[in-house]
Amino acid sequence: MINELVSKIKKLEAPIVVGLDPMLSYVPEQVKEKAFQEFGETLKGAGEAIYAYNTAIIDAIHDLVPAVKPQIAMYEQFGIEGMIAFQKTCAYAKSKGLVVIGDIKRGDIGSTSEAYAIGHVGKAKVGNNEFQSFEEDFITLNPYMGADSVLPFVKVCKEEKKGVFILTKTSNPSSGDFQDRLIDGRPLYEWVGEKVNEWGLDFMGDDYSYVGAVVGATYPAMAEALRKIMPKAYILVPGYGAQGGAGKDLAPFFNADGLGAIVNSSRGIIAAYKQEKYAQFGAENFAEASRQAVLDMKEDLKQAWVK
Amino acid sequence: MINELVSKIKKLEAPIVVGLDPMLSYVPEQVKEKAFQEFGETLKGAGEAIYAYNTAIIDAIHDLVPAVKPQIAMYEQFGIEGMIAFQKTCAYAKSKGLVVIGDIKRGDIGSTSEAYAIGHVGKAKVGNNEFQSFEEDFITLNPYMGADSVLPFVKVCKEEKKGVFILTKTSNPSSGDFQDRLIDGRPLYEWVGEKVNEWGLDFMGDDYSYVGAVVGATYPAMAEALRKIMPKAYILVPGYGAQGGAGKDLAPFFNADGLGAIVNSSRGIIAAYKQEKYAQFGAENFAEASRQAVLDMKEDLKQAWVK
Repeated sequence: MINELVSKIKKLEAPIVVGLDPMLSYVPEQVKEKAFQEFGETLKGAGEAIYAYNTAIIDAIHDLVPAVKPQIAMYEQFGIEGMIAFQKTCAYAKSKGLVVIGDIKRGDIGSTSEAYAIGHVGKAKVGNNEFQSFEEDFITLNPYMGADSVLPFVKVCKEEKKGVFILTKTSNPSSGDFQDRLIDGRPLYEWVGEKVNEWGLDFMGDDYSYVGAVVGATYPAMAEALRKIMPKAYILVPGYGAQGGAGKDLAPFFNADGLGAIVNSSRGIIAAYKQEKYAQFGAENFAEASRQAVLDMKEDLKQAWVK
Repeated sequence: MINELVSKIKKLEAPIVVGLDPMLSYVPEQVKEKAFQEFGETLKGAGEAIYAYNTAIIDAIHDLVPAVKPQIAMYEQFGIEGMIAFQKTCAYAKSKGLVVIGDIKRGDIGSTSEAYAIGHVGKAKVGNNEFQSFEEDFITLNPYMGADSVLPFVKVCKEEKKGVFILTKTSNPSSGDFQDRLIDGRPLYEWVGEKVNEWGLDFMGDDYSYVGAVVGATYPAMAEALRKIMPKAYILVPGYGAQGGAGKDLAPFFNADGLGAIVNSSRGIIAAYKQEKYAQFGAENFAEASRQAVLDMKEDLKQAWVK
């Protein structure tokens, strides 16, 4: 799957993943009204509104980008109906040829991590049958609990040729509370980066590893150090746009081959129609606004990766 | 809710939480067969088998313990049907008067953490309506992303009078990979403990805080230091029994008032019928075996908290 992701990024010249993090407040009124008319102002109504919103955006951008990244929290907030929307969104994105990165940030002790892995990137055995629940190709993981919380995910991914991105230096302002603290003279996130590299060398695709890292666009200087520590890890880069990162600042995330990073934008793409810049599209053409925002992001990112 | 938890622990003399982590392999054959006959060897069959297993155990132990802790990974592995079993299990436990600790180990950036909080301990707004999805009273959180990933959960908990347990020193063998690394001469888990204390003092119940910590039974010496760092935090203690911790070793987790810790046992209770010690019950009386295992655990733990 890492080979497929890299090949799509090259072909499309777009190291871009569109974050499908649908706050209900992003969903245009006409989409919400249609869902609420059919299902009421209920959790099902919310799930259906989100799913309709997502599919319109996927239809508008699937030929431009290699991947989407649904953020499961935005679905989980609506309970079972939200999780159904998450599952349908993953399946719809797959049907359109997109790589699906499930932003789930899970992590637990051994057998429990394996259970998460089975649900998200593996297959559950029930009697003599096997079932795939959520059709994700990659998932994000939290490393706080150490190797034996991460490696059960890697084990399942090896069986399924799927991959992980491990939180290393996250994009949020407080990420430094623990991640920046110095251990033997080096910040914790670099020690996590060392482990990402070590785990990843044992699970390589053609040029890059199935074990990647999450490093926030908001911290390019730190990315420069991490890029060297884990040269074979693909870096998933959140925090572009809305959180402050810009294309010209992202060069340190990429390797000399122009590869090695995939930049996420969520609100900046899916709620583009709310920005003054794309106001001419109007709420009724929200998906076309998203398409234009992807095209603009693609141009902006060339400052980072075209060598 | 922390006051209710403390008062139940005192009344029942049982600082015990039963971990509802149902591997399908724990579920007795007759329970599985009944579910599979009705729903097939399907994800729904698995979910129904787990739910039937859980309700029988809850019926057998609800008058002995203050709380249960469903581990969401064990449900999430079966996709939507598993999540339905999780939701129903939480609701059934509530209906029997139990405090529900959702072991979800979530954590993300601000608005995303808030979305998780809404789904698990808050209420989702859809149009003019509000909905509660998963009826948890407490949830576990992962602190790796720092204050702005934790505080949105605390904010929702304040509105709902619910609480959190923050992973501090976890029970698994690799927990030391990052948690034990020294920062200015003190291990990372102690720095997390300092934050737990700080966040908790701002959200107090009568004697204990709504912000608790997870510290593994497998590390009593570390618990002794953490107990001093965060005197008002309730400690949720996994790793008793199956993972190696024993009652006599758990004194450092408790304060001088005999309170301050609640010890989890999962497999040791819910799959007690599989142990030689409880073999006389047989698989058909698995829930009675669980009841006896709780009574034995209650006695064993007195070595830790009776001062």
